[in-house]
Amino acid sequence: MAKQEFVVTPWEVKGKIDYSKLIKEFGTAPLTPELLKRIQKHTGELHYMLKRGIFFSHRDLNWLLDEYEKGNKFFLYTGRGPSGKMHIGHLVPFIFTKWLQDKFGVELWIQFTDDEKFLFSKDPEAKLETYTGYALENALDVIAAGFDHKKTHFLLDSKPEHAGIMYREAIKVAKRLTASTAKAAFGFEDSFNVGEFFYTSMQAVPAFLPSVLKGKNIPCLIPLGVDQDPHFRVSRDILPKLGFYKPALLHGKLIAGLLEGGKMSASIPHSAIWLTDTEKEVREKITKHAFSGGRDTLEEHRKYGGNPDADASFQWLYSFFEPDDKKIQKIYADYKSGKMLTKELKEIFIEKVVAFLKKHQAAREKARNQLDKFMYRG
Amino acid sequence: MAKQEFVVTPWEVKGKIDYSKLIKEFGTAPLTPELLKRIQKHTGELHYMLKRGIFFSHRDLNWLLDEYEKGNKFFLYTGRGPSGKMHIGHLVPFIFTKWLQDKFGVELWIQFTDDEKFLFSKDPEAKLETYTGYALENALDVIAAGFDHKKTHFLLDSKPEHAGIMYREAIKVAKRLTASTAKAAFGFEDSFNVGEFFYTSMQAVPAFLPSVLKGKNIPCLIPLGVDQDPHFRVSRDILPKLGFYKPALLHGKLIAGLLEGGKMSASIPHSAIWLTDTEKEVREKITKHAFSGGRDTLEEHRKYGGNPDADASFQWLYSFFEPDDKKIQKIYADYKSGKMLTKELKEIFIEKVVAFLKKHQAAREKARNQLDKFMYRG
Repeated sequence: MAKQEFVVTPWEVKGKIDYSKLIKEFGTAPLTPELLKRIQKHTGELHYMLKRGIFFSHRDLNWLLDEYEKGNKFFLYTGRGPSGKMHIGHLVPFIFTKWLQDKFGVELWIQFTDDEKFLFSKDPEAKLETYTGYALENALDVIAAGFDHKKTHFLLDSKPEHAGIMYREAIKVAKRLTASTAKAAFGFEDSFNVGEFFYTSMQAVPAFLPSVLKGKNIPCLIPLGVDQDPHFRVSRDILPKLGFYKPALLHGKLIAGLLEGGKMSASIPHSAIWLTDTEKEVREKITKHAFSGGRDTLEEHRKYGGNPDADASFQWLYSFFEPDDKKIQKIYADYKSGKMLTKELKEIFIEKVVAFLKKHQAAREKARNQLDKFMYRG
Repeated sequence: MAKQEFVVTPWEVKGKIDYSKLIKEFGTAPLTPELLKRIQKHTGELHYMLKRGIFFSHRDLNWLLDEYEKGNKFFLYTGRGPSGKMHIGHLVPFIFTKWLQDKFGVELWIQFTDDEKFLFSKDPEAKLETYTGYALENALDVIAAGFDHKKTHFLLDSKPEHAGIMYREAIKVAKRLTASTAKAAFGFEDSFNVGEFFYTSMQAVPAFLPSVLKGKNIPCLIPLGVDQDPHFRVSRDILPKLGFYKPALLHGKLIAGLLEGGKMSASIPHSAIWLTDTEKEVREKITKHAFSGGRDTLEEHRKYGGNPDADASFQWLYSFFEPDDKKIQKIYADYKSGKMLTKELKEIFIEKVVAFLKKHQAAREKARNQLDKFMYRG
């Protein structure tokens, strides 16, 4: 991989991502100031993830707002690929989605794709049940983000009650999708299994299932990590042929992990803050491993200042943990000037994470009794 | 297509099939006299379709009988691809399967593959619901073959309750099947849709679903048209990797239609006797269209005799409508000698068909109230 190169697919993200370049490559549209204003007209305020460009790109959002303004309410759809336990990066789109749900007062469908993670696992002895187990645990983290079960419907792909309603819709998508299109969109080869070829059809279903269930065409907005865009490029081509709207998309950035240049990854445990981490683990991980934008010596730091744009702690405060614009600007300025030391910046980050996880973990335990209420019932 | 060439795949059957050659090509085993005796030991008598070689080939039947003799009972699995209404040719494997069920006293699973017929339809505007409708109508014909609902379970692939339990098992098969294996087994190309690639995984499921449901490994015997063998060649490779027995297979010949050299086909209505035909339609169709092995003139026929081996009416009496060995031998001899005229042979055929359809159609109407009882409930 040459310098500056990066890869973003639903199954692989590597390199330093140039998001402007990605917008061009993927053919999406940037979230312009005009469009942000148009959102704000309806939401009253702008979520910090919009103001700060964490959500940065879209497809057909103007159309979606046209429909909304005509009284044609949309529904939200997002998902979780349950490959294991969740880290804070996984929670980003859910926190943002909850805000959208609250501000627009709309229904939300969340798909847990245990079938995907099973089919795409490199382990030939992988068991579906393992991924179903992850999905049920991940569902607790999602509920803990604060969703309202009256407006929020979980779909678990392998759950018979859900697979049953989804399979019959998925084959309608599959009939319109050739193997060669799947190869071009996802980089599949003949050595890939037939479930991998089929799978995107299942991921397409929640984008029109509410329309099927209600017997009328309902617009759909999908907030998602930008790496998932190829799935919906394919389904946006197919859905109109089945008589449904193309879903609108709102793309989020893929926030880096604690280590330099990488993402939070299960294969490098200290690269990530897991939602089940203890205070001790968080403190140790951030202190020892969070990539720092500080100078090599205290003297140099005071003299030349730090680099918040490269600092993992700052980036996480900016993207997630410090919604207050004034506060984050002050942290930025102080760290850049050298007034704030790395140790102090990390301490702010640690305190934010610990407070967040304490609240999250309590909500997560309460969620065990609520899970049934979130599972869709026909 | 050169003379003597033939094609047998799950989606195309053409030419005059050389069944001995097919056994070699497919790598199956012939049903030997020894094996027939071994069956007879358990069934008391031999079904005429076995004696007459309508079922002519197998895979692992000796193993299945070994298990049966050890007290390890098998279950039966067969299916119907609901591409439209059914003709008498479609009923052949069901009549034989019912005999197997009665003689061995075993459970039977019947899969109606509306998903398959939808996915493989050449019509881009095809609707799944059309094939589901065919399946529900075909199910009446199957019930009319006389099955006992207490031991017989229907699976309708697109029915949510059935798709739900099948999808989660199908992806376990799909994970073990590469696109390149599917291409080699079925002749798929990249222009085929991803549902076609995936589909055989659904067809594999009933071969081990009873084992999943009962939590123990149960042998499976699949009576099927030999054109369906490629599906189970693939699943026989995969099922042992999932911890299940390879299903044993019993292959039936593909009985020709009324016209010369072809099969019964919806695209040529008078090539087939439909299970919903009236007496008038049957009489007209056989009289006018059934390919005759008779001579050009009455004199020649009396002098040289007819050719029962080429005669559609005789072939159908032999394969299906005249189980009595003495009677069929006499018809054969009389027609071959010229003693029996084509008109007389056709009259025997017509009477048999009319009597059969009268009974079948009455049973078919009664079946409407029974359909629910046959549908599998978890």
